[in-house]
Amino acid sequence: MTDLAGSARLRLDIAYDGTAFHGWAGQPGLRTVQGELEEWITRLLRLTAPAELTCAGRTDAGVHARGQVAHCDVSTSDPQASAAELLRRLRRALPADVAVRAVTVASPGFDARFSAVWRRYRYRLTDPSVASDPLLRTLVVAHPHELDVAAMAATAPHLLGLRDFAALCKARQGATTIRTLQRLDVTRDETGVITVEVQADAFCHSMVRSLVGALVAVGEHRRDVAWLDRTLAARTRSNQIRVMPAHGLVLEEVGYPPTEQLAARAVESRAVRKLEES
Amino acid sequence: MTDLAGSARLRLDIAYDGTAFHGWAGQPGLRTVQGELEEWITRLLRLTAPAELTCAGRTDAGVHARGQVAHCDVSTSDPQASAAELLRRLRRALPADVAVRAVTVASPGFDARFSAVWRRYRYRLTDPSVASDPLLRTLVVAHPHELDVAAMAATAPHLLGLRDFAALCKARQGATTIRTLQRLDVTRDETGVITVEVQADAFCHSMVRSLVGALVAVGEHRRDVAWLDRTLAARTRSNQIRVMPAHGLVLEEVGYPPTEQLAARAVESRAVRKLEES
Repeated sequence: MTDLAGSARLRLDIAYDGTAFHGWAGQPGLRTVQGELEEWITRLLRLTAPAELTCAGRTDAGVHARGQVAHCDVSTSDPQASAAELLRRLRRALPADVAVRAVTVASPGFDARFSAVWRRYRYRLTDPSVASDPLLRTLVVAHPHELDVAAMAATAPHLLGLRDFAALCKARQGATTIRTLQRLDVTRDETGVITVEVQADAFCHSMVRSLVGALVAVGEHRRDVAWLDRTLAARTRSNQIRVMPAHGLVLEEVGYPPTEQLAARAVESRAVRKLEES
Repeated sequence: MTDLAGSARLRLDIAYDGTAFHGWAGQPGLRTVQGELEEWITRLLRLTAPAELTCAGRTDAGVHARGQVAHCDVSTSDPQASAAELLRRLRRALPADVAVRAVTVASPGFDARFSAVWRRYRYRLTDPSVASDPLLRTLVVAHPHELDVAAMAATAPHLLGLRDFAALCKARQGATTIRTLQRLDVTRDETGVITVEVQADAFCHSMVRSLVGALVAVGEHRRDVAWLDRTLAARTRSNQIRVMPAHGLVLEEVGYPPTEQLAARAVESRAVRKLEES
């Protein structure tokens, strides 16, 4: 297998413990997931131009991932280079807090960011009714107040569907805050850990942690559904909504359409993006 | 509440991430769970004599606990001292990798070690059929070879009951290796993680990790039940059994009899122990 001879687009499936990273996005002088991966891919494939990764979900500092997806266009003169060999080399080279689970030559038209049709995140937290568990402290947020999970679960369906989530988004000039929230489930498991599972076509910056913050306000009986409706209707960032701590959040999975729709989906997403930026 | 005025025996329920500890047992110059707790209890209760903890299961370096139990005899002149107040102070003082979940004045006759009637441990591992998960790397052992979980589960019942587990124990002069294995279950969950759950009246040194090592040899099809029977029948430490890595192991729970039997159980356990040492 020498499927990388010449030029190719690679798809990488990636998991990481965000604790010791300053987020996904490369920043000079800081340890980031993107920086770590680009450095190793460049070295292991002996690329003349540094590798550049594009991911499906740019996670913030401290946020984890089990199902991050990225692509990377590579051009190598190494006649032995193959996706399988790169995967083997990455497994040996990468530090323990980041793992590449798969490397494949991407299907035609694939773009990790623009071909994606949904992203799914999971946020985990406990309240004082649960014994503190040092074994989960980097993955589960210990919320200091009791939470009424039934009230949170009853509120969640009000947020589903296509709407303007500006109240829950950190403003970024030009970027749309209209999203389709496809799934929002709140459950407590037998160990007492509360999980918020959320899926949308895409999320704007800090949206998942703000969504959980809004549900937590309801779970504390500080706020109710009417407040949430009013806040969302205002269509502007609300300072009444708390952005929850990063370490409870995991990017679990990214969904892509069937191969024959990858290119069309990317064109469509890019057009929306352009419209936003104009 | 000033239930500690004068002298009292405390029961502490403890959880810890063993990663950064040199095990439970205090050792000069090393960071241990016992050392950390004794130091804080001594300081927070302003004890004149340093606190001395006795635990139910002396875990090795790197082993974790969710259900460790210890006792400590304290004598304080602080008129405000109470178990509840000590718990509050410990919660504020302790580092993030150890948590005291409860502090209570022990029932009469209670001895964390000798009153215990069973200990339950859980060992978790994956094989190459499971995608590596950096989020669980300090809690789940990534075993490098495929494991036949059905074969492991079918072998487990052969080990149950009262027998001499010398083949699975690091020799300690005089200590018995006769134990009653009450439970040994091997399962694989929907994420692919394999859990070995094991309960016995007590365990000798390295016995749980050796039990898992024996099952792993069967799961790799390197060994079978007949080999296991022969090995155990030899009643001497076998160098064919691998002691599995520490970080997959968690002391989950310790069982005690009803209050009125605590003292009798402790007397009984101590008598067995004396017999061994004589």
